[in-house]
Amino acid sequence: MSANPQLDANGALAHLLTLEGLPRAIILHILDTAASFVSVAEREVKKVPLLRGISVFNLFFESSTRTRTTFEIAAKRLSADVINLNIGTSSTSKGESLLDTVDNLSAMQADMFVVRHAQSGAAHLIARHAGAHQHVINAGDGRHAHPTQGLLDAYTIRHYKKDFTALSVAIVGDILHSRVARSLVHALNILGTPDVRVVGPQTLLPAGVESLGVRVFHDMRKGLAGADVVVMLRLQNERMRGPLLPSAQEFNKYYGLTPDKLALARPDAIVMHPGPMNRGVEIDSAVADGAQSVILPQVTFGIAVRMAVMSILGGS
Amino acid sequence: MSANPQLDANGALAHLLTLEGLPRAIILHILDTAASFVSVAEREVKKVPLLRGISVFNLFFESSTRTRTTFEIAAKRLSADVINLNIGTSSTSKGESLLDTVDNLSAMQADMFVVRHAQSGAAHLIARHAGAHQHVINAGDGRHAHPTQGLLDAYTIRHYKKDFTALSVAIVGDILHSRVARSLVHALNILGTPDVRVVGPQTLLPAGVESLGVRVFHDMRKGLAGADVVVMLRLQNERMRGPLLPSAQEFNKYYGLTPDKLALARPDAIVMHPGPMNRGVEIDSAVADGAQSVILPQVTFGIAVRMAVMSILGGS
Amino acid sequence: MSANPQLDANGALAHLLTLEGLPRAIILHILDTAASFVSVAEREVKKVPLLRGISVFNLFFESSTRTRTTFEIAAKRLSADVINLNIGTSSTSKGESLLDTVDNLSAMQADMFVVRHAQSGAAHLIARHAGAHQHVINAGDGRHAHPTQGLLDAYTIRHYKKDFTALSVAIVGDILHSRVARSLVHALNILGTPDVRVVGPQTLLPAGVESLGVRVFHDMRKGLAGADVVVMLRLQNERMRGPLLPSAQEFNKYYGLTPDKLALARPDAIVMHPGPMNRGVEIDSAVADGAQSVILPQVTFGIAVRMAVMSILGGS
Repeated sequence: MSANPQLDANGALAHLLTLEGLPRAIILHILDTAASFVSVAEREVKKVPLLRGISVFNLFFESSTRTRTTFEIAAKRLSADVINLNIGTSSTSKGESLLDTVDNLSAMQADMFVVRHAQSGAAHLIARHAGAHQHVINAGDGRHAHPTQGLLDAYTIRHYKKDFTALSVAIVGDILHSRVARSLVHALNILGTPDVRVVGPQTLLPAGVESLGVRVFHDMRKGLAGADVVVMLRLQNERMRGPLLPSAQEFNKYYGLTPDKLALARPDAIVMHPGPMNRGVEIDSAVADGAQSVILPQVTFGIAVRMAVMSILGGS
Repeated sequence: MSANPQLDANGALAHLLTLEGLPRAIILHILDTAASFVSVAEREVKKVPLLRGISVFNLFFESSTRTRTTFEIAAKRLSADVINLNIGTSSTSKGESLLDTVDNLSAMQADMFVVRHAQSGAAHLIARHAGAHQHVINAGDGRHAHPTQGLLDAYTIRHYKKDFTALSVAIVGDILHSRVARSLVHALNILGTPDVRVVGPQTLLPAGVESLGVRVFHDMRKGLAGADVVVMLRLQNERMRGPLLPSAQEFNKYYGLTPDKLALARPDAIVMHPGPMNRGVEIDSAVADGAQSVILPQVTFGIAVRMAVMSILGGS
Repeated sequence: MSANPQLDANGALAHLLTLEGLPRAIILHILDTAASFVSVAEREVKKVPLLRGISVFNLFFESSTRTRTTFEIAAKRLSADVINLNIGTSSTSKGESLLDTVDNLSAMQADMFVVRHAQSGAAHLIARHAGAHQHVINAGDGRHAHPTQGLLDAYTIRHYKKDFTALSVAIVGDILHSRVARSLVHALNILGTPDVRVVGPQTLLPAGVESLGVRVFHDMRKGLAGADVVVMLRLQNERMRGPLLPSAQEFNKYYGLTPDKLALARPDAIVMHPGPMNRGVEIDSAVADGAQSVILPQVTFGIAVRMAVMSILGGS
């Protein structure tokens, strides 16, 4: 077994790059720490001084206001200093390489990098290159991983369902292009979920997806039958107009979550979505705003999970 | 009388959406609170810890660096955490609805939204939709309202003229498209100003403007005669090239504030402008930089007024 | 001698606009103060409360993520409030003049302006116009000056070479368009460096450059012979395609820093570059990443130098 690039010599978390291969104890530690921050958010003063004097750099090579905002809020609630860099439009346009940019920011004594990049592996590259006391959090790299999303999904499931070891979780939609799906599948496997299903048309499922330890369904009605958790994925706009799908309307008919399809899952099933939603495409408003939806609690838990990851990295 | 959406069940300010219909006591409380913050700004350390741990989201669907900056400074001087979101270029381009965006930010436990939007009513919509402990400040919605500007104008007038109940105030220029004019007229009416005048060409006055409780003048010389306060409005660039006006030069001739026109007002009249100015169009430099101009004090008072509004909302 | 616009009536630093004409004692005071901040950056909590409640406005009329970031970090480590304004895309597009913009920001009680502008003299203009308690730092104006870069270069040289009075410093490349070169030459002259050389093709050297107190070399091998310090300048992309140079490849052949050319300098010579680098154009990777390179320490010292300038101005 090769050394895990996310762990330091003592086995503690040094970077959060992917959930694949992360020890179960570390994931549970993050979820437990997040639980303590959920209560911080309900207090009068929502700040804790855990990262005072720590500089967090949001390096967004790909723009994502929503994800950047959640990390910015999480860092500020920990009293860190946050520097937002939209790299897409600056240094790289001056011809500087990614690693030179990172070297420079490292020399400014950055303590933590939150990295979003269109290319898979970008966060790993930066982590390998970073200084000894610097920590990298992958905020989404290409189709590869989005580990804090996977963790907040796991947190949400644990919050509502308590125990992973008797659950059926169905992940529906564009599995092929989804780092969200990939990270959640890893989390669920590590946490001992016995039945993880992926549901979608052949064209939106990666070849050999079964090797991830999931069951494949093309018929959504069969895929949802008896599920405890239904995770809908966002259908990227470009797919709707692309060659992989007939149309958004067709997609909705076969793979959109409607009240009648949801009725096939367990009566107490929860509905999740990473956002932003395409209402009327992958999810109907009646479901998105319905009693089984936990889509907004996911967002709230997402802040707490990111605070947990940052505070664990910053304290190590 | 329908319930005021800006007030909570106890009649305290819950949102600041428009000055129309706001109780006089609340406006006076804001102005009095602002006075205490003017002195904060003169201290060595300009910060007060009133909003520590509070998250203020600047939601600018329409870009306005100047207004956004005044709110950002006001929030930081109150020790709040500020998150700037230029929504125009992000989530909405992913097809998410305004209310889904707001729901998501609410789920991140935003405490206060400062909203600028090109459409009238956007801030009201967000206020109706926001959570129980969230407060919305309208930072300008379409042609409708810009209440903090109206308040800072009222503050400025009170600072120099003390008493509203014997004043003549002339508002000059593009009344039709001006949320600044609308908010100021409401403030002046509520505060008991006996003589509020609007001055402009027929094409730049709203139909039925008299119903707002103002006197209408098309001849600027008559409109300024004996005025205690002259408020010049910015002429938007698009109007200068549009069908409503012959040209910027023509406008200046008839409705630009020149020293000779200002001489018709009272000798101690003050000159105001919300900025940014078009020098040589609606106002001459000799007036803008002259002894009667209080245009820059308006900016200073604007910070204090925004601190007042935020601290009152945050404390409620 | 005319009064120095950078000094107040007591001879203390009021603005940092250019190193030209700055008293040697003030430069040494900045370097000494910076040394104390280098150690702050190595502490657990990197913040000091020196500028608490102070508002620093980053006014970038020309976009520069890297420079803006260094000032933002420096200000935050001093506990100042930082407001970032990309002016290029806002008020000026509304037709407002530079001085009206500055007047407005001054009225918001800005304490410090960090100004980057494409036109030489912009920072001077703002300093002349600013209020009595406001301080201006030039973060690069046209081809004129970039004084904090000159100071961090001087800091770096002093760190590695201790004493300026026996040094040979060679500055290589596009001297003509470089405010970095100009500021460094002034610093080196004031600090008593006996041998300052500029090296470049005739087309990239300003006419009469010798009047700055430098020796001119067109042959890089001769220019580097025996040098203690080699400062490479960035070749702007537009020069590579412009009429002043045959091509980037040609430039590299004659004026690129390669290991064999560096071997002509003293064996303990250090290599500097303000960044961002064009690897393979003005500098080879073997040198940039080699044992003599101090390019990344320059960045680290740059934060400390900017903290020093800000804390000295803020304390005056």
